[in-house]
Amino acid sequence: MSKIVMKFGGTSVGSMELIGNVAKRVQLEKEKGHDIVVVVSAMGKTTDDLAEMASKITNNPTKREMDMLLATGEQVTMSLLAIQLNSLGVETLSLTGWQAGIVTDEVHRNSKIKQLDGQKINEHLMANRVVIVAGFQGMSELGEITTLGRGGSDTTAVAIAAAIGADICDIYTDVDGVYTSDPRYVSHARKLEQLEYDEMLELAHLGAGVLHPRAVEFAKNYKIPLRVRSSYEETEGTILKEEVDVENNLVVRGVAFESDIVRLTIEYTVPFNGSLASIFTTLANNHIDVDIIVQSIVEGMKPTVSFSIKKESLSEAIHVLEKKKQNLGFTFADFEVGLAKVSIVGSGMVSNPGVAAQMFDRLSKENIPVKMVSTSEIKVSVVVPQGNMIQAANALHDEFDLAIN
Amino acid sequence: MSKIVMKFGGTSVGSMELIGNVAKRVQLEKEKGHDIVVVVSAMGKTTDDLAEMASKITNNPTKREMDMLLATGEQVTMSLLAIQLNSLGVETLSLTGWQAGIVTDEVHRNSKIKQLDGQKINEHLMANRVVIVAGFQGMSELGEITTLGRGGSDTTAVAIAAAIGADICDIYTDVDGVYTSDPRYVSHARKLEQLEYDEMLELAHLGAGVLHPRAVEFAKNYKIPLRVRSSYEETEGTILKEEVDVENNLVVRGVAFESDIVRLTIEYTVPFNGSLASIFTTLANNHIDVDIIVQSIVEGMKPTVSFSIKKESLSEAIHVLEKKKQNLGFTFADFEVGLAKVSIVGSGMVSNPGVAAQMFDRLSKENIPVKMVSTSEIKVSVVVPQGNMIQAANALHDEFDLAIN
Repeated sequence: MSKIVMKFGGTSVGSMELIGNVAKRVQLEKEKGHDIVVVVSAMGKTTDDLAEMASKITNNPTKREMDMLLATGEQVTMSLLAIQLNSLGVETLSLTGWQAGIVTDEVHRNSKIKQLDGQKINEHLMANRVVIVAGFQGMSELGEITTLGRGGSDTTAVAIAAAIGADICDIYTDVDGVYTSDPRYVSHARKLEQLEYDEMLELAHLGAGVLHPRAVEFAKNYKIPLRVRSSYEETEGTILKEEVDVENNLVVRGVAFESDIVRLTIEYTVPFNGSLASIFTTLANNHIDVDIIVQSIVEGMKPTVSFSIKKESLSEAIHVLEKKKQNLGFTFADFEVGLAKVSIVGSGMVSNPGVAAQMFDRLSKENIPVKMVSTSEIKVSVVVPQGNMIQAANALHDEFDLAIN
Repeated sequence: MSKIVMKFGGTSVGSMELIGNVAKRVQLEKEKGHDIVVVVSAMGKTTDDLAEMASKITNNPTKREMDMLLATGEQVTMSLLAIQLNSLGVETLSLTGWQAGIVTDEVHRNSKIKQLDGQKINEHLMANRVVIVAGFQGMSELGEITTLGRGGSDTTAVAIAAAIGADICDIYTDVDGVYTSDPRYVSHARKLEQLEYDEMLELAHLGAGVLHPRAVEFAKNYKIPLRVRSSYEETEGTILKEEVDVENNLVVRGVAFESDIVRLTIEYTVPFNGSLASIFTTLANNHIDVDIIVQSIVEGMKPTVSFSIKKESLSEAIHVLEKKKQNLGFTFADFEVGLAKVSIVGSGMVSNPGVAAQMFDRLSKENIPVKMVSTSEIKVSVVVPQGNMIQAANALHDEFDLAIN
């Protein structure tokens, strides 16, 4: 008998029929004798629809109230699923984020889980009940409803798995596992049986989109085996763990890509004195994620720094930086839109220094201009024109033999 | 400067446009310098739509989970209205039932407010904020989400008015006041300027539908002036208070009617020994509302008792009574569906013993058979065939001169 957390995303619970399928799947696991906690997202496009309603009122809705609004989505799914399971004779109850004891910080629309006491859930499990918990939401210490931001239901699932000491956390989704690249765009993409947390973390951060990065971080920190599975078919999926079995000695294990990147370049108007940190502190305080940062100091030219952010953050980034321009001592030099990021990821890369060179060489042969570069121990990212993104991803997938099992 | 509770029902917040109108109305009151608490229902038919989703799964959904499901409706309305008001520059925040400190009993789908601490709301009012509270919902002492049953948002509004010491509680609705009868069916129905709590209580209990009975009870107990107003036009509405100014010495002040009544008749198989109480205790414990009870003991016949319930309670009533039939010592003798109740209401009736006789006489002249009768100090109700309901209401409205101001 195992303790299992089963997480179902929006597409898996997008209709009454699909909720019925999920109920049968949960019943099946319960009948095997497992203790089951289910974490659900809002049905289909519900979250988008609710946000759309608010956006009809104003472009800048109160964040606290947006959390109030969006938190209803999961509550609808979980109660319908509980009704379904109870009607199948499986004793079930649902809990909102605050009822499940999920305590977050005070950052509305993008809060982080600070604390999760698994006791209440465990009590219900011991009473042989299936427990359904609303994903994506929690309560701050002030009693305010908060949401974890997009993909937050994954985080809820892993946090619960850690809090109750689950044996595995199954993330059911509309893909049947993690692929070497996105099979919709990269024709030879192949499903991976195993992947390391860190590799997934890079892939998630780089926009592979299957799992929320915070969920993977949580899983890594608490060593929770995480399995990505299809909610439609009975397949094995991909297991994330600390260290994977070596698979054909592949150095690169995946190619990720992400569109809608903007590059901002600023020029210092006063001598460089710590304002680099101040700029990024300002952006961080306003919850604008900066990805790649390139500092370029050339003799005889004013010093500049370029950094990439997501397209949707552009207006707010410019707004907050404009206000601080005088204090921080810089001017905007340039910004370029219509960019994309393409990355290769693999934990073996650290001992293979030639990987980056091989990547640049191939991109050069493909006549794809590289606008920015960023490297870590297990990945190399390049920023390229958005029009070249798919071409670059396919070329690199081929270059590093990812199609071969 | 007054403290005002403004309650808007589902039809008043049925679309984004209507929510916009409500926001402007609230803004107007706020700009007059009043302290404002707004109580909202779910948008339009949202509650019905949610219940419909659950009914696609099963006819007997878990009540606890239904409360989870239905409570989302008000939460959507209140956050959208808060976003709207904030965007108009009126500082506003919304509170769920549990956040507002509304403590109820544990009866899911039909809970009663046990306690309401107005302190949190008052703190926000003192900080010059408009506070929006979700109607219809609360939290039990065990931390479970509960709902107050249909029309419960009215109760929420009055309970809040009492808890914060409001000067008036305005119930905005799709009618512009309380009428002598339902103007959709009774052609000469006329709006009343004033009405006593007790009269409204009888009208509400009798299905006049404008206000929830519990709300009127609350208002009566705490002497909160309650005003029924139109959410579409600026009219005076009807004020409910303890004693109204005498209006043409009218004895009867309203004619109410309610369809879908069922009459059950049971026959005792054992000598009568307290089982009458047992039967109604059993029904009450299962939250089946019994309305009129007629006991008939005729020499030489087995004793019978007839009582009326709502049509939707019929299957559950039969179910719970069948289980206890042997213990309680009775058999089902008869049941009749397709009935309706028609009532005349007026606090002057207590000193006019001829009113009931005048009512029966007119019904007899109209050839309308009377199946059951029930009287109180301020009303007389008759159960008649549903097909005669509208005819009876119009006849009685005419009989007691209600069309004349």
